[in-house]
Amino acid sequence: MARERGPWITSPARLRERVRAWRARGERIAFVPTMGYLHDGHLSLVERAARSAERVVVSLFVNPLQFESRADLARYPRDLARDRSLLAKARVDAVFVPSAASFYAPGHVTHVTVAGVGERLEGACRPGHFTGVATVVTKLLNVVEPDQLWLGQKDAQQVALLKRMVQDLDFAVDVRVGPTVRETDGLAMSSRNARLTAGERAQAPMLYAALRAGRASLAARGAGPLARRALAAERAMRAALVRAPLAHLDYARLVDPATFDAPAPGARAGLLVVAARFPSARLIDNLKVSLRPAR
Amino acid sequence: MARERGPWITSPARLRERVRAWRARGERIAFVPTMGYLHDGHLSLVERAARSAERVVVSLFVNPLQFESRADLARYPRDLARDRSLLAKARVDAVFVPSAASFYAPGHVTHVTVAGVGERLEGACRPGHFTGVATVVTKLLNVVEPDQLWLGQKDAQQVALLKRMVQDLDFAVDVRVGPTVRETDGLAMSSRNARLTAGERAQAPMLYAALRAGRASLAARGAGPLARRALAAERAMRAALVRAPLAHLDYARLVDPATFDAPAPGARAGLLVVAARFPSARLIDNLKVSLRPAR
Repeated sequence: MARERGPWITSPARLRERVRAWRARGERIAFVPTMGYLHDGHLSLVERAARSAERVVVSLFVNPLQFESRADLARYPRDLARDRSLLAKARVDAVFVPSAASFYAPGHVTHVTVAGVGERLEGACRPGHFTGVATVVTKLLNVVEPDQLWLGQKDAQQVALLKRMVQDLDFAVDVRVGPTVRETDGLAMSSRNARLTAGERAQAPMLYAALRAGRASLAARGAGPLARRALAAERAMRAALVRAPLAHLDYARLVDPATFDAPAPGARAGLLVVAARFPSARLIDNLKVSLRPAR
Repeated sequence: MARERGPWITSPARLRERVRAWRARGERIAFVPTMGYLHDGHLSLVERAARSAERVVVSLFVNPLQFESRADLARYPRDLARDRSLLAKARVDAVFVPSAASFYAPGHVTHVTVAGVGERLEGACRPGHFTGVATVVTKLLNVVEPDQLWLGQKDAQQVALLKRMVQDLDFAVDVRVGPTVRETDGLAMSSRNARLTAGERAQAPMLYAALRAGRASLAARGAGPLARRALAAERAMRAALVRAPLAHLDYARLVDPATFDAPAPGARAGLLVVAARFPSARLIDNLKVSLRPAR
């Protein structure tokens, strides 16, 4: 059981005991949940967590409950040895690595669902996904009992969903969000990028290009009613994605960052979101935008 | 804000702060959730809680989410002044009395569902009820952060459901169960008993009589296969309830105490459960039984 030594912990009870000992000394605990196959986006979250709390807990768990298909779960990239070596260089106090078999007890029947924000866009495209996310994060929060939950802006709807869940279920945790980390060509870092073929990888940066085209459209058409500006921005995003012919567009939308509904008429801030399916991987990205009319 | 003085607390943040101060001193916290209109069953739970932990927190909250109809919610008996005077005589360190408006934030969309045990009998008779129970108890556990959750055996399926939820969602709480407290004529104490007319009240003890008839049947027919003995016991319960003509029987069953499914063929312990609707109130009761063949 080499993994049980040092900061690597597989037992929920053992992790909770360790965290409670830290808390008893007055130390704050920051928690970064991941599905492993770590990239610089994860590591930037870990760094931010380490700057804002005395202790950092990272979880590595490919949660079967949040995959709509067994094929997608099977294909999800994994490299625990590489994750281990990356985290060894980071300031991490505990790495929680439960096994799927032990983390979901036989006869597991309890689920956490978030309606509203959880039903739109990603929720509609990936039935059951957000219930899987909400359920596993509830479990992880109950095991880790952190003061801060660190999430990446790349998964913006997941952030909105978990903020809503934390409020609705009274979790005593502060949700913190780290910015999307990008490759030099603009592609948002994601564990799924590893699955892209060379041809797909060449077209993948068009998601971010589409978001920038949407932002440019909003800035240029600053004077009209919001609904019309939104339609123009969505058209600009779709037009940009024509240059990624390998991608099938799931959606390109301007939404309210909290509800993922259409922004209210007087909204000052919005979020451009895009999701596209390449043959080898489905990618998502987003960009915060100001909705104040340009002068 | 007289209610905010002393042990009466309406603010979740204030309660959590107080509980955390106790925990920091190494004190254990026992929690007794109630919907108020307290009776000796509740008070016996409070006494047991006080004997097993340094601090006792009681919540009084008529949870709108667990009522299937507005009419039932409106009719649920309430008497905060009486509850206050009863709790003043008990060893209680904090009474959490949130308001429905503040406890469920505007836009609340998150729910906890428990399939399996949550779908049978009471779950089938009262759609949405157990989701309301699981959701409010999740919220209360997150606010109170207790070491022990005290529940009454009278609501046996609720006990089974919450034990399952606590396990599935990794809540760090020990579920403890206090026995059903009965009136001298056998009627299980329940806040809903207050709604019964005199004629209904006279017939209400037949629920417990039916359970005892079921138990007698199981003891007498100790030799046959369990499925046949179960049918005979259920028949005996229904026969006893003929003497409560004002009651409409929802179910009278022998079940597994954890899953509320039919007991497995080799099961050694079972639970007889009964639910009946009087015109003024729906009542439930249950009795643990040994399933070992008599010699």
